[in-house]
Amino acid sequence: MLLTLDRSSRVPVREQIRLEIAQRIRSGLLKPGQRLPSVRVLAETLHISLVTAHQVYKALDREGLTLTRQGKGSFVRETAVLSAEAAAADPYDWQLSVPDSLPRASFWSQSAVRLPPHILDLATAAIHCSLLPLELIQASFRQVLEHSPQSLGCYSSFAGDEQFRQVLTAYLQQQGITVQPHQLLVTNGTQQGIDLFARTFLGPGEIIAVETPCFSGAIDAFRLARATLQQVSVDRDGIRVDLLEDLAATTKVKAVYTVPTGQNPTGAVMSLGRRQDLLQFARTNNILILEDEPHREIELGRKDLPPPLKALDTTGHVVYLKGFSKFLFPGLRLGLLAADGSIFNRLLAAKSITDLGSPLWLQTALIPFFSNPLLPKYLDQLNSVLASRRQLTIRLLDRLLDRRIIRPRHFAGIHLWLSLPGNVNTDYLIPEAHHRGIHFLPGSIFYAGEPATNHLRICWTNLADADLPRALKILCALLNEALEPA
Amino acid sequence: MLLTLDRSSRVPVREQIRLEIAQRIRSGLLKPGQRLPSVRVLAETLHISLVTAHQVYKALDREGLTLTRQGKGSFVRETAVLSAEAAAADPYDWQLSVPDSLPRASFWSQSAVRLPPHILDLATAAIHCSLLPLELIQASFRQVLEHSPQSLGCYSSFAGDEQFRQVLTAYLQQQGITVQPHQLLVTNGTQQGIDLFARTFLGPGEIIAVETPCFSGAIDAFRLARATLQQVSVDRDGIRVDLLEDLAATTKVKAVYTVPTGQNPTGAVMSLGRRQDLLQFARTNNILILEDEPHREIELGRKDLPPPLKALDTTGHVVYLKGFSKFLFPGLRLGLLAADGSIFNRLLAAKSITDLGSPLWLQTALIPFFSNPLLPKYLDQLNSVLASRRQLTIRLLDRLLDRRIIRPRHFAGIHLWLSLPGNVNTDYLIPEAHHRGIHFLPGSIFYAGEPATNHLRICWTNLADADLPRALKILCALLNEALEPA
Repeated sequence: MLLTLDRSSRVPVREQIRLEIAQRIRSGLLKPGQRLPSVRVLAETLHISLVTAHQVYKALDREGLTLTRQGKGSFVRETAVLSAEAAAADPYDWQLSVPDSLPRASFWSQSAVRLPPHILDLATAAIHCSLLPLELIQASFRQVLEHSPQSLGCYSSFAGDEQFRQVLTAYLQQQGITVQPHQLLVTNGTQQGIDLFARTFLGPGEIIAVETPCFSGAIDAFRLARATLQQVSVDRDGIRVDLLEDLAATTKVKAVYTVPTGQNPTGAVMSLGRRQDLLQFARTNNILILEDEPHREIELGRKDLPPPLKALDTTGHVVYLKGFSKFLFPGLRLGLLAADGSIFNRLLAAKSITDLGSPLWLQTALIPFFSNPLLPKYLDQLNSVLASRRQLTIRLLDRLLDRRIIRPRHFAGIHLWLSLPGNVNTDYLIPEAHHRGIHFLPGSIFYAGEPATNHLRICWTNLADADLPRALKILCALLNEALEPA
Repeated sequence: MLLTLDRSSRVPVREQIRLEIAQRIRSGLLKPGQRLPSVRVLAETLHISLVTAHQVYKALDREGLTLTRQGKGSFVRETAVLSAEAAAADPYDWQLSVPDSLPRASFWSQSAVRLPPHILDLATAAIHCSLLPLELIQASFRQVLEHSPQSLGCYSSFAGDEQFRQVLTAYLQQQGITVQPHQLLVTNGTQQGIDLFARTFLGPGEIIAVETPCFSGAIDAFRLARATLQQVSVDRDGIRVDLLEDLAATTKVKAVYTVPTGQNPTGAVMSLGRRQDLLQFARTNNILILEDEPHREIELGRKDLPPPLKALDTTGHVVYLKGFSKFLFPGLRLGLLAADGSIFNRLLAAKSITDLGSPLWLQTALIPFFSNPLLPKYLDQLNSVLASRRQLTIRLLDRLLDRRIIRPRHFAGIHLWLSLPGNVNTDYLIPEAHHRGIHFLPGSIFYAGEPATNHLRICWTNLADADLPRALKILCALLNEALEPA
């Protein structure tokens, strides 16, 4: 186990260790039945006292995550403990002694759940495939397959196909973002953009401020880089810049990660004034902003969305990420990153080390799609269908959900954040949810530190038309029952 | 700048710092004209004396990499130094003060060279597109586009499409590798497989043994993970296990990286006996082997190639990587990783954090290709064409190249490693090569430590039929002229 401790943090070291181990158990990186380091080894490795190490396991035992047996050691709890015999027969047994550098993988552990087909999936943030532009894409693919199949035969340039980046430049221009093709990097979806940023600019202990709650895939990537995450509150205007300023006054903040438009998971939209404040803060302190914008295309008829931070950026402080999965096709795994100057060059070097560039064929196959005059019309249609789904969702929740369960009044994006009274732990509702035929994301995975456990995230765009009301009804009943009698 | 020093190394700290900075300059991460940290800052950051810091810059100045000006500081050398005025007008100037975690990017710096179209490319290790199975792929893509377009609409599972992995399982079985689909992970080419391994199992200072010389993309990935690389010699049977044993006796070696079949760049083939020794060494010491096998399909009529290490592995010590770029299409950027048990699970978690999985559409589009009964016939044809090209290449080199320039007698793969007398530096031949209309890879990028500069790598499969002899003639003349008169 490779734990990174921050001895200057206000969080006590014992608590940091407990949290790290708890997260590795919850995220599936430590498997049920696995033996944890002994108290002595833990103390020696982390330079803590035996008493502290002992207290860590005691706390984990109390949480029900581990089981410490006198003279045997501490184990990750499981219902059926492997017999010693079975363990001895496993030829891969030696592998457990190989340490790794993975601090947590919460997104993976929650999203890789293999759901039986009858389960209605409110967890995955995607658009139901019947709403996606299949015919436009088929036409685009066919055209390239007939007329430019040579793009199969070449490696892409590391940054991406030149012509594809030209088309994307024009596309971004429509959203107010003025960049040149040489400032664009084609990525394997937004997640890779986040990860490239993390491994390029976040070394061990370097500080990134994140919104709380925050997209768990981003937390996982920042943690894998061994950065220190500082949680900053979000109000109805977006991330609180006053708190960022307090933070920067006492510590060296290197970057801020934000999803300003349809924050994930809360759906909040950062106001224009707050965007300007955030940029000013970045300029004053030479801090990088990582702007993740998956939802710009899904405006649901709100034509008054403030511009992206990148559109307001004149000094190269913003690294901008756009995924195509929410309005195009998740099966393509393509996204783009826009940045400037030496910040861009270094991200490009990291991309080259990571995978030598994204698939050239998919890039050329999308050029006709992004140049198609029917694209705006498709986006309008998509938004009008989604807007009525959104209304349906809100109406149903207003009608069926106990008033003690709170949802934001104003939100963008394709998901919805529900908050239950503090004594309800949504992690524990998952098995019953599966039993009744639905799946959602427990809120606990969206925290960089000690998780709040009384929230959950649902996505209302991923189900077939007929399934959505059914799933929401099951959900409301389940949540209402979890409350104490009124 | 983030330099990782190993104070227990036999290489003096001053030398480590000089090498790190030199590599960053050579690999383009430090740009011409860029100001380096002052002697004082370098000393403070790295906990070295002022004298040592001063000596580092003096040595770099002597190498011609930097220029130190009294009272002004040290700068990366360039022909035209930016005027102070021009620098002040650059709104991105602040970016140079943002440190990053990239130690080097040699592969990028050499491979991202934008060649004018008339230059004959002997550098890129690829097969000329006229030899690749365009019609098989077009048929495969068309079939999926008509009959299963729904694969566009979904995220892939993180490990890859289930049916695709079944097809790959059968394909691997033909090469003697018995795995189950749940032991396969679809990657964005081999480079991502190397990178996933590095970030999962190689933490700062952890030791990986590499062949010397070694594929520079792998070195870059290991360095990005801040691992310590130990170079191990290769003889005609492959990596020297006796030296590995010596190394393991004194240091904690965690992994070995090898390209056993058609080593990159030397083309060496590890003998069966050596493969068994290496596996035994791994088992005895619980060391992971990262086996990179891009050339298995390109056997050029040699039906006696020893089996992959993975085929001999019964205890899960081998993580196996196969790229599809050398016999299928580089524009697809797909590869596979095979591993077992908890080693596999942790690599899967890293994949999920990196990019949430590879493009589902490309995976489903390749299922018909890998199931096509014509695939073996295509591979036979490809190999017979390449075998005659190889002969042509060898004949030409034997006829035209000065006898003091050495090439290996026995090699596999699609590249060739040429060794000049020690006083010739192939880095310096690149401008003249471009001037005469060819490009190759200087040998210096293939070293994890102090580079040998008298080698070069050429690839003889990437040019059109008519261009290959022309390129080789230019190359031979250039190299012969670089020698001292006989």
